Amino acid sequence: MTVPGDRTRRPFVMEEAAAILARTPPTLGALLRGLPDPWIHGHEGGDTWSPFDIVGHLIHGERTDWMSRVRILLEHGDSRPFDAFDRLAQFEESRGRSLDSLLDEFAALRSDNLEALAALRLSDADLERRGRHPSLGIVTLGQLLSTWVAHDLDHLMQIARVLGTQYSDEVGPWRAYLRIISGTQG
Amino acid sequence: MTVPGDRTRRPFVMEEAAAILARTPPTLGALLRGLPDPWIHGHEGGDTWSPFDIVGHLIHGERTDWMSRVRILLEHGDSRPFDAFDRLAQFEESRGRSLDSLLDEFAALRSDNLEALAALRLSDADLERRGRHPSLGIVTLGQLLSTWVAHDLDHLMQIARVLGTQYSDEVGPWRAYLRIISGTQG
Repeated sequence: MTVPGDRTRRPFVMEEAAAILARTPPTLGALLRGLPDPWIHGHEGGDTWSPFDIVGHLIHGERTDWMSRVRILLEHGDSRPFDAFDRLAQFEESRGRSLDSLLDEFAALRSDNLEALAALRLSDADLERRGRHPSLGIVTLGQLLSTWVAHDLDHLMQIARVLGTQYSDEVGPWRAYLRIISGTQG
Repeated sequence: MTVPGDRTRRPFVMEEAAAILARTPPTLGALLRGLPDPWIHGHEGGDTWSPFDIVGHLIHGERTDWMSRVRILLEHGDSRPFDAFDRLAQFEESRGRSLDSLLDEFAALRSDNLEALAALRLSDADLERRGRHPSLGIVTLGQLLSTWVAHDLDHLMQIARVLGTQYSDEVGPWRAYLRIISGTQG
């Protein structure tokens, strides 16, 4: 519930969501294009993802997840669950690609998807329409579109963190002040 | 200590650090320019900062913190502590400004500072030179420059988080999957 004047919550507004979704490809381009390879392929250890992996994941979402879920919801309501999303598809699909080509592809797919979304001319009432998530159960179209936006920002946050933690040792005593390295939320 | 082939740590390399520092203004521009005001001024409650506040903080760092500390260190070594940094200066200095004018100012200051940094023609040996932080004590020039980079990425992470958490309620059941909202590191 959004309280007027509450600066911590924003209600879903289609034009605002589209404005944020449109900004993700140029933001990632400005941050990542031309960075030396060790930064593009750095990660947080173990099975964690690099910026390169994350861009591939965003591409896979544009291809198979967000707009296809919108269409399933509009066509079938909650009678047919969405297809499950493969969170690891990018490891195959991005193999041998350059980061620039992934960023180009992400930008093109996002632009097409935003055009397709606008063409649906969804009303405020449509945002209440219900679909079925394979694990989460009943969800609304507004929740799906809000999640698309938050998911972008989640991965932007992750990329910033993956890059920043590369200097965990190099910053020396300053690590105590840098939340990106100390891992404290704040 | 950086182990060759370790994807979680990167040693400080001046050209790489400068490449990342140069990317922060266009990245923030791509993300924030033209976003509706409630997004620019949204925060995480209490005394937490909005994207607008954070850009002001980055400007203050360009004006008074990073390069002036570099100069104090090179001139005085560890005999003179750095000036303390005012973490709240932006609340006065940004008052009444537009986000676009703050972003323009940040970009111009960063560009000047990177030019001044390059003009110092610092060697690898210089990176070991010591200075004195007013609270942390002895630090090296390499640690100071690494911190400049990690500090940028820390605040980029923070801006992504502040934006993403605006939809904490709107995403409905998906909040369990979104680390930006659930607050789990991962």
